[in-house]
Amino acid sequence: MPNTTIPPRNEKGIQAVIGILKQQFGPNFSTSQSMREQHGHTTTWLENQPPDAVVFVSSEAEIEEVVRICRTHKVPLIPFGTGSSLEGHVNAPTGGISLDTSKMNAILEVNVEDMDCRVQPGVTRKQLNEHLRATGLFFPVDPGANASLGGMAATRASGTNAVRYGTMKDQVLGLRAVLPNGDVIKTAQRARKTSAGYDLTHLMIGSEGTLGVITELTIRLRGIPEAISAATCSFETEEDACNAVMATIQMGVPMARIELLDALSVKAANAYSKLSLPEKPLLLLEFHGSESSVAEQAETFGEIAQDNNSTAFEWTSDAEERNHLWQARHDQYFASMALAPGAMGISTDTCVPVSRLAEAVMRAQARANEDGFLAPIVGHVGDGNFHVLLLIQEHQREKAAEYVSWLNEMAISMDGTCTGEHGIGQGKGKYLVREIGPEAVNLMATIKKAIDPDDLFNPGKIFQAV
Amino acid sequence: MPNTTIPPRNEKGIQAVIGILKQQFGPNFSTSQSMREQHGHTTTWLENQPPDAVVFVSSEAEIEEVVRICRTHKVPLIPFGTGSSLEGHVNAPTGGISLDTSKMNAILEVNVEDMDCRVQPGVTRKQLNEHLRATGLFFPVDPGANASLGGMAATRASGTNAVRYGTMKDQVLGLRAVLPNGDVIKTAQRARKTSAGYDLTHLMIGSEGTLGVITELTIRLRGIPEAISAATCSFETEEDACNAVMATIQMGVPMARIELLDALSVKAANAYSKLSLPEKPLLLLEFHGSESSVAEQAETFGEIAQDNNSTAFEWTSDAEERNHLWQARHDQYFASMALAPGAMGISTDTCVPVSRLAEAVMRAQARANEDGFLAPIVGHVGDGNFHVLLLIQEHQREKAAEYVSWLNEMAISMDGTCTGEHGIGQGKGKYLVREIGPEAVNLMATIKKAIDPDDLFNPGKIFQAV
Repeated sequence: MPNTTIPPRNEKGIQAVIGILKQQFGPNFSTSQSMREQHGHTTTWLENQPPDAVVFVSSEAEIEEVVRICRTHKVPLIPFGTGSSLEGHVNAPTGGISLDTSKMNAILEVNVEDMDCRVQPGVTRKQLNEHLRATGLFFPVDPGANASLGGMAATRASGTNAVRYGTMKDQVLGLRAVLPNGDVIKTAQRARKTSAGYDLTHLMIGSEGTLGVITELTIRLRGIPEAISAATCSFETEEDACNAVMATIQMGVPMARIELLDALSVKAANAYSKLSLPEKPLLLLEFHGSESSVAEQAETFGEIAQDNNSTAFEWTSDAEERNHLWQARHDQYFASMALAPGAMGISTDTCVPVSRLAEAVMRAQARANEDGFLAPIVGHVGDGNFHVLLLIQEHQREKAAEYVSWLNEMAISMDGTCTGEHGIGQGKGKYLVREIGPEAVNLMATIKKAIDPDDLFNPGKIFQAV
Repeated sequence: MPNTTIPPRNEKGIQAVIGILKQQFGPNFSTSQSMREQHGHTTTWLENQPPDAVVFVSSEAEIEEVVRICRTHKVPLIPFGTGSSLEGHVNAPTGGISLDTSKMNAILEVNVEDMDCRVQPGVTRKQLNEHLRATGLFFPVDPGANASLGGMAATRASGTNAVRYGTMKDQVLGLRAVLPNGDVIKTAQRARKTSAGYDLTHLMIGSEGTLGVITELTIRLRGIPEAISAATCSFETEEDACNAVMATIQMGVPMARIELLDALSVKAANAYSKLSLPEKPLLLLEFHGSESSVAEQAETFGEIAQDNNSTAFEWTSDAEERNHLWQARHDQYFASMALAPGAMGISTDTCVPVSRLAEAVMRAQARANEDGFLAPIVGHVGDGNFHVLLLIQEHQREKAAEYVSWLNEMAISMDGTCTGEHGIGQGKGKYLVREIGPEAVNLMATIKKAIDPDDLFNPGKIFQAV
């Protein structure tokens, strides 16, 4: 079994590093309470474990310098993008320095001819798409939050478009990173494919800041489709909706987005985003392609939906209406939280093979009802990924933990995963072991140990006491 | 710099292992000269370095046993699929045991609803597609040779369909492997996406047998498109053909295949495969989609081709005609070799950003002509990957080595790679260092050392004296 001990707090080292960084970084260094708390984890159920200080870096050379200082004094270093992680990735369980990359937000190069670009890690997805507007290209990964691309790579993020365009692992052609030993590596050239040695790009993607600090990314872009249309489709039951999704995927319809909102989520969206959708299980869809192919896709989907007892199918090519719908989808977390003001939100992230989706969603919903939880469900269902959001009061904490455990185990028993896109972070280490076995987790720990022998890069993430 | 020393031959260990394996594997073990030579590298310019013995395994448990025996006696172990590698991957530079997985050719499970399957590593791509015929699904990666899926994963293979469907890295959802320490790992569940810890799947893909022996693969499948049509399109110059490719990719036409044959390759194909193509630079294309989308794609391509001075564009939906064309493409290696009976073939595998493709191909061709080489060029040009095949006589060896070195350096200088799909193997270690730098290669070596401290799994590959 992997060694899961986090090194104890190194007070002396931390004070030494604070002294040095303060001198070197001046106004770009802070130990203020509010700054520290803002850089600890503040969303969802994990407690806030603020770092001892925050340093704002503006270049790869500065990251190298911070790594050198932290290594010398054996002080933990926690890379920080925008802090939109839901799994405690930016927490500092035994203290250390938060390395904030938000000032490294330059778009270094856009190669329109090759449909790729080179960016610093603090560039956000919205910023990139804004910048690309005139080029006819776009960056397709959309996790909802306006996350940084470095952070999205570090957690292998995805979101609504993944069913068509893939996750972060499918967009990053290569990256640069500073390793715990101080080396700066480049993982790959800009060619579209390569068989040049171990796939260091994919080793870094999803490593949650535990193996290196990403300093630059080369990212694949896509052509903005000639035609885009959005659609909503209501069903009597979540099961029907899921079955329609399964049939659509199996028919090979190249859906750009296919999102489930259960009836409760639709109710929340109507209230929060001023929509008037039927308060029934809903699929929210998007089709990309040529004019004729989009029409063909919508028609095929419409037929499948009808075969699965859909009650209403409406589609629109109007950009404004489409944006309003997707903004509502992106605001769903807040809309759902507004169902129970003052409640705590516990987000789950299970993903199962699509053939098991209907069963998984039905069972998740049934048990949440039995347990008396207010628990809206949304999902990137084309990939089999769905989020049950438990809205709980303090006294339900224990029961909620039992539910989450049961849900993760159910997904695992269906050959699925406890995390489709949020990452392991601080809370899912034990499920990781259940999911792929101690031998595979041990291999991960062997790699971590070889690259970061003192466990200084984002300690306490992925590998946890089980 | 990485440690590049291969452990010296361990004669005593090898003899001990031979004794044990002979007893345990009986008829599935061989030390015959012919069997050993067949399991050393026999294609292209690398010399044959046969293993000391060959063991045919039939289960994961048997692989575990062979690994245990080799580890105990510190004897190298070289995984073997079908031996179609072009980069010396199956050679045994200091001896050892070839572990032949060809008998592990069971298709364990096909999940039609989820469009995936579970196979043993010895299953070949043709065998899998044969098996899938009735399901409406297919496996898209097609490197030409009827390679084993385990071998294709180990070298991160791709081929003609990669422009649309991606390489092996995009098909393998997860795998099982035996590690040098004897552990058996499963890298991922069957869910379509995951953020569960380090991406061990992609670490194993492309590791060329140096980190583990793959014992099982879970592979993503695709729906057979409703309509498929093939096309040939001739141009006056290779440059025009490459420019048409670049424009096609930029227009976002979802090409299934877009292959370049230079004029010399077309001549070879005509002679070898009894075709009557115009002996001019040729693009060989395939379109997948619905009837209407295929027609639309072909029309768009036709316009682009015309803008780039195409001289003839013909397309066909006739399956027999299409298969004949693609068989010819697959036989191109043999067709080209037949241009100079008795010559030695040296295959190259450079890949550059598509915007540099025309320039790269023109320079490669010009210098081959200057140097007096007979050197047909083919390419998976939608990805920027092309192969110059040098057909040389013994006295041209040195000049050929200079050419290969120049070609690889040129690709690297264009932000490309020395290997788009064949792997590093025995011959490209020094280019790997040039390409991504000593720090990144050192990280690879650190991982190798942590996982295989005695360097027993396929030693002398990827990491070479530079």
